[in-house]
Amino acid sequence: MTSLALCTINNSARSIARLCRVSRSAHGTDDVHSFVARYSTLRKCSAFLPGGKCSFIKTGTRQMCQASPGRISLGRYGKGVFLAAGAAAVTGVLVAGVSHFQRAEMATKISRVEEEDGDIRQRCKSFMSPPITDIKLLERRKDEMSTRMEMLIMETQAAFCRALEQVDGGSFRVDRWSRKEGGGGISCVMQDGKIFEKAGVNVSVVDGNLTEEAARQMRSRGKILKGKDGKLPFRAMGVSSVIHPKNPHIPTVHFNYRYFEIEEADGTKQWWFGGGTDLTPVYIDLEDATHFHKTLKEACDKHHPKYYPDFKKWCDNYFYIRHRGETRGIGGIFFDDLDSPDQDEVFNFVRSCAKTVVPCYLPIVYKHLNDSFTPDEKDWQQVRRGRYVEFNLVYDRGVKFGLATPGSRIESILMSLPLTARWEYMHEPTKGTKEAEMLEILRNPKQWI
Amino acid sequence: MTSLALCTINNSARSIARLCRVSRSAHGTDDVHSFVARYSTLRKCSAFLPGGKCSFIKTGTRQMCQASPGRISLGRYGKGVFLAAGAAAVTGVLVAGVSHFQRAEMATKISRVEEEDGDIRQRCKSFMSPPITDIKLLERRKDEMSTRMEMLIMETQAAFCRALEQVDGGSFRVDRWSRKEGGGGISCVMQDGKIFEKAGVNVSVVDGNLTEEAARQMRSRGKILKGKDGKLPFRAMGVSSVIHPKNPHIPTVHFNYRYFEIEEADGTKQWWFGGGTDLTPVYIDLEDATHFHKTLKEACDKHHPKYYPDFKKWCDNYFYIRHRGETRGIGGIFFDDLDSPDQDEVFNFVRSCAKTVVPCYLPIVYKHLNDSFTPDEKDWQQVRRGRYVEFNLVYDRGVKFGLATPGSRIESILMSLPLTARWEYMHEPTKGTKEAEMLEILRNPKQWI
Repeated sequence: MTSLALCTINNSARSIARLCRVSRSAHGTDDVHSFVARYSTLRKCSAFLPGGKCSFIKTGTRQMCQASPGRISLGRYGKGVFLAAGAAAVTGVLVAGVSHFQRAEMATKISRVEEEDGDIRQRCKSFMSPPITDIKLLERRKDEMSTRMEMLIMETQAAFCRALEQVDGGSFRVDRWSRKEGGGGISCVMQDGKIFEKAGVNVSVVDGNLTEEAARQMRSRGKILKGKDGKLPFRAMGVSSVIHPKNPHIPTVHFNYRYFEIEEADGTKQWWFGGGTDLTPVYIDLEDATHFHKTLKEACDKHHPKYYPDFKKWCDNYFYIRHRGETRGIGGIFFDDLDSPDQDEVFNFVRSCAKTVVPCYLPIVYKHLNDSFTPDEKDWQQVRRGRYVEFNLVYDRGVKFGLATPGSRIESILMSLPLTARWEYMHEPTKGTKEAEMLEILRNPKQWI
Repeated sequence: MTSLALCTINNSARSIARLCRVSRSAHGTDDVHSFVARYSTLRKCSAFLPGGKCSFIKTGTRQMCQASPGRISLGRYGKGVFLAAGAAAVTGVLVAGVSHFQRAEMATKISRVEEEDGDIRQRCKSFMSPPITDIKLLERRKDEMSTRMEMLIMETQAAFCRALEQVDGGSFRVDRWSRKEGGGGISCVMQDGKIFEKAGVNVSVVDGNLTEEAARQMRSRGKILKGKDGKLPFRAMGVSSVIHPKNPHIPTVHFNYRYFEIEEADGTKQWWFGGGTDLTPVYIDLEDATHFHKTLKEACDKHHPKYYPDFKKWCDNYFYIRHRGETRGIGGIFFDDLDSPDQDEVFNFVRSCAKTVVPCYLPIVYKHLNDSFTPDEKDWQQVRRGRYVEFNLVYDRGVKFGLATPGSRIESILMSLPLTARWEYMHEPTKGTKEAEMLEILRNPKQWI
């Protein structure tokens, strides 16, 4: 059945598949694209996290993770990863009797490529734009984490953009931008496409010196960082994306994965990762919700059995529109400040998570591609978009931090906002409707698996 | 010419006129509806004001105001105040050769009613809903500032709502709500009307005890307030309004006027007023802008020659979308923490300002009532609405404070958001277009008179 499914994949889809595929290393880690979001690059933001700095730490599982890498569930590795089933759907060739989610699973059985083992210059050819850092420098610092992350960010952006272009038929506009203080980014945006009203996939790689204020805020979070002449050189990188489809039956998705490092006076490097993927449907579809969370759980379980439950909870807490008493969507995972057990392990975990972005989302897009919808359903989508805007502008730490940072590229930060949104006074769905069902879920986050 | 103009006003308009008219007292003060906004009731918010707490204080004019009430320009009193010309327009009866703004001026010559001298029970009959405070209590405390303000708030809400209903042909939905901790409000909203996409006029009168946190924040603003057993009883009231018309040639208007009092352990009452009115056009119309600012200036000049220039500047500073480098609109006036020279004087000033709301705005509405517009012009309006949302959710102290306050009525706070808005990636008007002209003004605030 696997080969049957793959026969339907055209050449273009194969090239996407190559970018998206899973590679299994001897250590049970994924050779995945790591997504690192620029906008949460300074730890100070975490101070605003509902429920404290790090729920994961609070539960004491961080210690457990450090002590028990051997407990990582390798058995589930590779399951539920989407490869190129979407490409089949977009060309209208569907394998009878095989669901979008089944095909996603089959796809994992394709042979793998160890992206990190490839030649840097060669890998760069697949990117939406050349990397931010000079390729020669990347080659010279091939084994450094910042290089590995930048390559992964770039590959992730390309993989996701190509997959979206494939389903939409449109093309991303690619904008390179530089930052006066150091570094820059690549913003890919598709607006008013056939399927996507607004789709943004942004990469940034920035460096510079932390201001004393930023350093002070870091100290207040418990880590004393000693600068040289008051300066703390830092490097931050990430990929973040928000996709708003036109059809109200296709949910909005958001992900971001990020890496931050800071150098102290004695040359010690402090570093950490953060990230997450979450889904915002307009109408609930149990199969979609289960598929989405199951795919994330499988990625997490490969690294620690507490990751999924803890980061799922963190996600529900984070994407909470407090003044509305409802979550933004049906969640997923969210984590920050992850710096243990060691850099390689965390990197591998982040890669696993990032690797799930396409398999989490694309099957859902394809499934609902031709769903019909009414003007009332479109209106409800617009109202939910209004709530999305409320969350992003009022609560999102990354947006708040970005808007408050001089020199930020505002268009890249606000590309997460939908093309259109609506605010109706006293909007409350009638009991028993699909809209009321959705709202009930947002008011009482569920366990999906 | 005055009588000619007035002959065109029908009975319904006359009743509105009665509510809106100016009354000149022996002291040169206006018997105006004071607008007091709930949402800026705690001074702590002012800490966020761009450029410091109070530009008015900074320039040293507060001292001047205290010392020189005699310098208030009474000569200009009464000019430029709109009364009921709008009513003529809405019935399609226009006086040939008399502009909207000329007719607004003529209207000031109508005989006046001293609202405050009237019977409280009688005055309440014109309100959109009975006052928040029990009428018997208002009668008993007739001379207290909180009673005078509550009556003015209620009258203002009614006057503005009736004027908008008159021009639109639709009706306001009136919602009374109460606050568990004390007090309540009346929200009047007209949505998807003939002229107005969303029009909200909200009144609130709340009381209770300040938390220690709130008290601490007040202390940090320089005023040490001593509570009884750690409690500081307060009373706050205000009226606020945002009107989003459908036609992109009719600007959005916002106003709010508010009063706050707090009782210390020794029975001393601290009090202050705040408020402002500002205009957000989608396209610039010099005549409109001049009329709007001139009307405000005349209201200010009656009380102090520094009020208009200082509060105009404060307004430009306050309604500034920092991350965009542009103001929300073309400003107006904005002030806060006004507590000198004495309560009556400030109250009179607030009344004068509030009294200008209808004459500032309605003539502009009538002028553009039948302007045609293109889909592109509508799009530009939607983009500007997106910016409006950005300001309100990211910077507006009142909204931020309201959303963060448990027990707030969210629908009343967020009724300021437009029904629809739009975010286009990298939107930049073409040079030489009307859109570019507008943006240039927003990036470089002008002196309009």
